[in-house]
Amino acid sequence: MTVINGYEQSDREEKLDILNLPSLEKKAKDIIPTGGFGYISGGSEDEWTLQENTTAFNHVQIIPRSLTDMENPNTETSLFGNKLSTPIMMAPAAAQGLAHSQGEKATAKGVASVGALMSQSTYSSTSIADTAAAGNGAPQLFQLYMSKDWDFNNALLDEAVKAGAKGIILTTDATVDGYRESDIINNFQFPIPMANLAKFSEGAGQGKGIMEIYAAAAQKISPADVKRIAEYTNLPVIVKGIQSPEDALLAIGAGAKGIYVSNHGGRQLNGGPASFDVLHEIAKAVDHRVPVIFDSGVRRGSHVFKALANGADLVALARPIIYGLALGGSQGVASVITHLNDELKIDMQLAGTQAIEDVKKAKLFRK
Amino acid sequence: MTVINGYEQSDREEKLDILNLPSLEKKAKDIIPTGGFGYISGGSEDEWTLQENTTAFNHVQIIPRSLTDMENPNTETSLFGNKLSTPIMMAPAAAQGLAHSQGEKATAKGVASVGALMSQSTYSSTSIADTAAAGNGAPQLFQLYMSKDWDFNNALLDEAVKAGAKGIILTTDATVDGYRESDIINNFQFPIPMANLAKFSEGAGQGKGIMEIYAAAAQKISPADVKRIAEYTNLPVIVKGIQSPEDALLAIGAGAKGIYVSNHGGRQLNGGPASFDVLHEIAKAVDHRVPVIFDSGVRRGSHVFKALANGADLVALARPIIYGLALGGSQGVASVITHLNDELKIDMQLAGTQAIEDVKKAKLFRK
Amino acid sequence: MTVINGYEQSDREEKLDILNLPSLEKKAKDIIPTGGFGYISGGSEDEWTLQENTTAFNHVQIIPRSLTDMENPNTETSLFGNKLSTPIMMAPAAAQGLAHSQGEKATAKGVASVGALMSQSTYSSTSIADTAAAGNGAPQLFQLYMSKDWDFNNALLDEAVKAGAKGIILTTDATVDGYRESDIINNFQFPIPMANLAKFSEGAGQGKGIMEIYAAAAQKISPADVKRIAEYTNLPVIVKGIQSPEDALLAIGAGAKGIYVSNHGGRQLNGGPASFDVLHEIAKAVDHRVPVIFDSGVRRGSHVFKALANGADLVALARPIIYGLALGGSQGVASVITHLNDELKIDMQLAGTQAIEDVKKAKLFRK
Amino acid sequence: MTVINGYEQSDREEKLDILNLPSLEKKAKDIIPTGGFGYISGGSEDEWTLQENTTAFNHVQIIPRSLTDMENPNTETSLFGNKLSTPIMMAPAAAQGLAHSQGEKATAKGVASVGALMSQSTYSSTSIADTAAAGNGAPQLFQLYMSKDWDFNNALLDEAVKAGAKGIILTTDATVDGYRESDIINNFQFPIPMANLAKFSEGAGQGKGIMEIYAAAAQKISPADVKRIAEYTNLPVIVKGIQSPEDALLAIGAGAKGIYVSNHGGRQLNGGPASFDVLHEIAKAVDHRVPVIFDSGVRRGSHVFKALANGADLVALARPIIYGLALGGSQGVASVITHLNDELKIDMQLAGTQAIEDVKKAKLFRK
Repeated sequence: MTVINGYEQSDREEKLDILNLPSLEKKAKDIIPTGGFGYISGGSEDEWTLQENTTAFNHVQIIPRSLTDMENPNTETSLFGNKLSTPIMMAPAAAQGLAHSQGEKATAKGVASVGALMSQSTYSSTSIADTAAAGNGAPQLFQLYMSKDWDFNNALLDEAVKAGAKGIILTTDATVDGYRESDIINNFQFPIPMANLAKFSEGAGQGKGIMEIYAAAAQKISPADVKRIAEYTNLPVIVKGIQSPEDALLAIGAGAKGIYVSNHGGRQLNGGPASFDVLHEIAKAVDHRVPVIFDSGVRRGSHVFKALANGADLVALARPIIYGLALGGSQGVASVITHLNDELKIDMQLAGTQAIEDVKKAKLFRK
Repeated sequence: MTVINGYEQSDREEKLDILNLPSLEKKAKDIIPTGGFGYISGGSEDEWTLQENTTAFNHVQIIPRSLTDMENPNTETSLFGNKLSTPIMMAPAAAQGLAHSQGEKATAKGVASVGALMSQSTYSSTSIADTAAAGNGAPQLFQLYMSKDWDFNNALLDEAVKAGAKGIILTTDATVDGYRESDIINNFQFPIPMANLAKFSEGAGQGKGIMEIYAAAAQKISPADVKRIAEYTNLPVIVKGIQSPEDALLAIGAGAKGIYVSNHGGRQLNGGPASFDVLHEIAKAVDHRVPVIFDSGVRRGSHVFKALANGADLVALARPIIYGLALGGSQGVASVITHLNDELKIDMQLAGTQAIEDVKKAKLFRK
Repeated sequence: MTVINGYEQSDREEKLDILNLPSLEKKAKDIIPTGGFGYISGGSEDEWTLQENTTAFNHVQIIPRSLTDMENPNTETSLFGNKLSTPIMMAPAAAQGLAHSQGEKATAKGVASVGALMSQSTYSSTSIADTAAAGNGAPQLFQLYMSKDWDFNNALLDEAVKAGAKGIILTTDATVDGYRESDIINNFQFPIPMANLAKFSEGAGQGKGIMEIYAAAAQKISPADVKRIAEYTNLPVIVKGIQSPEDALLAIGAGAKGIYVSNHGGRQLNGGPASFDVLHEIAKAVDHRVPVIFDSGVRRGSHVFKALANGADLVALARPIIYGLALGGSQGVASVITHLNDELKIDMQLAGTQAIEDVKKAKLFRK
Repeated sequence: MTVINGYEQSDREEKLDILNLPSLEKKAKDIIPTGGFGYISGGSEDEWTLQENTTAFNHVQIIPRSLTDMENPNTETSLFGNKLSTPIMMAPAAAQGLAHSQGEKATAKGVASVGALMSQSTYSSTSIADTAAAGNGAPQLFQLYMSKDWDFNNALLDEAVKAGAKGIILTTDATVDGYRESDIINNFQFPIPMANLAKFSEGAGQGKGIMEIYAAAAQKISPADVKRIAEYTNLPVIVKGIQSPEDALLAIGAGAKGIYVSNHGGRQLNGGPASFDVLHEIAKAVDHRVPVIFDSGVRRGSHVFKALANGADLVALARPIIYGLALGGSQGVASVITHLNDELKIDMQLAGTQAIEDVKKAKLFRK
């Protein structure tokens, strides 16, 4: 255990024996301090959208197939030409030092070890360079919470380019903080600095609440910003927080090279639809012009399958992986992704789908 | 604490630290006497409609928007040319002396302090003049429970005009008392006189049950009454208790200058639809001829947003504000409205809506 | 208390103070012996249909109306020219001696005292003549469980005609006993003779289970039986147990002068629809050729209203009235019907319906 | 009690007094060891599909019929010319030695005693010959988990032919093991050898988990296998695990003489539809070319009725029969089937259906 500003960080580093992802939450709650756990696990307001995110996967069903003449389904895929062992990726969650003393470094290491895609948050506990190094050359994306201060934005983008990021995720659904009641109940303030803020903010976020952190971010984000970031970095820009076909097309028109369908895991606008419920219409509008990343509510291999079959190219999640990080460090991260991918493979075999491309073409059932 | 006829009224006057509006109910229950709390919180029969009123907001969802190029959403709006800081208004709930010794005076003061619209019930604990004075010039509406006795009606309307009311709300959904079981269980009789009844009824309602109070009211209310009141007062008449497009048109035809969509917070006809479920069709029928006020079940900023997006111009509520009154007097009232408006502002920002007019044009999602 | 064959019958005779009908069940359970209570309250199998019968009323809603210019709604109606004070009638439930020592005599007396319609079961605890006498000239119907033995059938019909019955209800949905698990758990056998069986069956059913009783009844009931009974009695025959438009038309073709929509209160075929859910289509098919009686699941005034608005002419119920019988004898019966009718009147006023004919024309809302 | 490798097997042999099938589970849990009970009762992942399998029967309702002029419904039917007393059959569940020392022998004996159809799993605890002998000449089907080793397959098929099997069920929905969490929690390994594996696998499965057992089975099953088995055995091949009209037609094209609609009782692909929800469309596609067997979730006579009315010719179940086996041996098995058939007969009488063919033509109601 590492203690930083009175906050107790896990130091564990071990492979996990995982029954299923939902069962990790209780175990993680036992070792992550209350404030940190509330920040990680909570959603906004009464968490209707957070809960609906997972429930919504029951709105459609996978059809078991017969006489399929196949075996050994293969989960390999790619993004922007980068080969990946699995369509499951790490979502760009902030402040992973809340769960483990090695923070995003351990996450990146674990993600890389299973051939998955890493993405890193602006508000990460470790720096872009350190996280990239821990990932050992495996592909990573950098997520930008656009600041009002373009010097800050450019500095981060410079670092990301230098670190070899394969793309920039521009988050657009957090121009103010969602109303997260668990943070208020816990009077939660970040006990650990955010490495990327060090040069631009005294304390680097340490001792601040998420509302104050977001206050420094830009509320106004426009299509022009997509273009600006793309030109500045010469990297593909993925617009995150898309929940409607209209906004997907707007983003593509603005130069987005990827669409990231997400409602921020139910942490921002409560009373919005389950992310899964809007995925299909968005994917139809995107019509394969650019890849579609999906997150929010994913806990099961069948969720990954259904998201792919409904139009996603990659499927991201964060909370369960962060719980794995707390419980087992980089190996815990790898255990979580491996377990989820194993569930996915069972589903692929039983649904008669050899490859990820076959999953994407699978018809779903709606009662 | 003030004790009147053995009933203990709160005297509190302080700003409240509010997590959310639903959490106020339990706190208020601890300080409002049983009979009063049952009268305020209860609905009719098994409260199916009361509960459905709030559940129904989940039937549609707000779509988070991306790349909206906006910040600092503005909740200002107006009614009949009166400027308001927020579309959230106080519904004309009766007998607020049950919650606080200052009754409607404190409510009016708190409502005015945040630039919202006040409305006062015929059955208020304080007089029209006193309530108006406490509101300090801020706009107020007067709600009429039409009596069989037109001398009484005219006297009240005279007082309202004199006090500067900006309009008259004519309640039409309470021609008999809904079957409110909590009042029967508590054998509830008003312990506190109703100021406006003083001249016309011995005891002014004190010691009577709501069924007896309503018995003095008119069961027969016709379109001609709308015209009569409008001509007598020269004020806009808002017909309250509309739950169908047909009745909205009937009321407008009769001269109504506002339509108030409400099922009396589930206190009248149980087994009727959630008020929110009928709003959209009514607003379509009204077609902007006159403003639409909506109430019943509102507890969250997202509810306000959804009501506006479904056709409301103003959104009213009473119970949570009365709980705020009990817990903090006029400052408690202000705290409740401010909190709800803050939730609304977060929703507006995340839904990409700069102004109330933009909210009204926002498309909602229905799964 | 009267003890008969070890079974304790209530002797109570008093007016009841009723909050609502559902609350009567618990009170009645305290004074009716276990076996009898199980027989009265239970349904078949896992009681899905029994529960759905009441839940289904929530599938449609009553629309509150505004500016209706009416007061003092009137619940008078009629059947076959017989004037009734209320559309609420007593369903032909068996063996009311299980609830009260005066059995159907007290029920008939209570029903008559409030101007409602009585119907009496073949398997009643008191004889046709005694029940008729107790009803003091008020209209009654006689319900026939058709026996394999036509001497028995004719004898009962003769008695019914002689007693002045206004019609014969022919039950067709009980050609075998539904699988009622509470009777099996309680090993329930009728402790009290069935008066009408006295001449034809030793013990008159006493000491037998419902399955044995039904075994003596006819399994084969055909359209010809409707004609036979009608010709034999010269009385209108009402076919009970209709759950489809097809069977309603078949029955009318066979000479039925009334259609009784019922699923036997969820006591027969479990896994069938809620009776309310099939009412509207049946009433459309009947198209006012003959009156429609409805039962199954009615507990609230709003249920009566919705059934009338969906095509019923009369609305029957039994369990809550039998609970009233146990708790207060004939006055208890009257209290229950009066309470339910009072709830109905509130609904009529708030829905702007002056008379039962107006209720029948009221449009319902379906979300 | 027989103890084998430390596992306690029931030896009971007695007729059971059955209230209903769902109530058997708790009783069986008390006498079957934890690991065995978990294997028998459990489903995959969070058991959504397992639960939905039974819930889905509530999606449609049986219509009670009136004036049907019938009695004594008859449940006789047939498969491939083999006469059966009931459309209820034993599903080919594995390893019944977990429930009873006599395993499938007792099951076959009990099934035969009530004139029902037996089917036996490849992974049965008793050999094909022994099970057939116990069935005493009554019709049986043999279910094949196709091995990668065709010597093994052919040897089993030879035995089945020799034992007089009336058909071969080829299971196609278990090419990998579903993710069954109860087996993992219990670290369950088969304590009892699987008789049919004796010649080909040391230990015959004893001490292995279901995942290892399945690993020896073929993942690749193709239409050509249907043809191969049919030609090798000259018996009708029934393809089991069909959940879509497309696969039903594919199987028939490949030579299947029967379609077995099943999702393996929710033990394989979790997140798939309730088996009942896909039955109707499949039966429409099959269009009476070959018989349709249905299983998954059946617990009530009304479930059997609904499955038949939605297109099934025979309705299989396993868990409740295995509980009957544990509680009463062959007589327990007979008691379960008899009870379920008795419930079916009540439903047939009340729905006006004389014969199984009439049930198949019954219209169902969907709210």
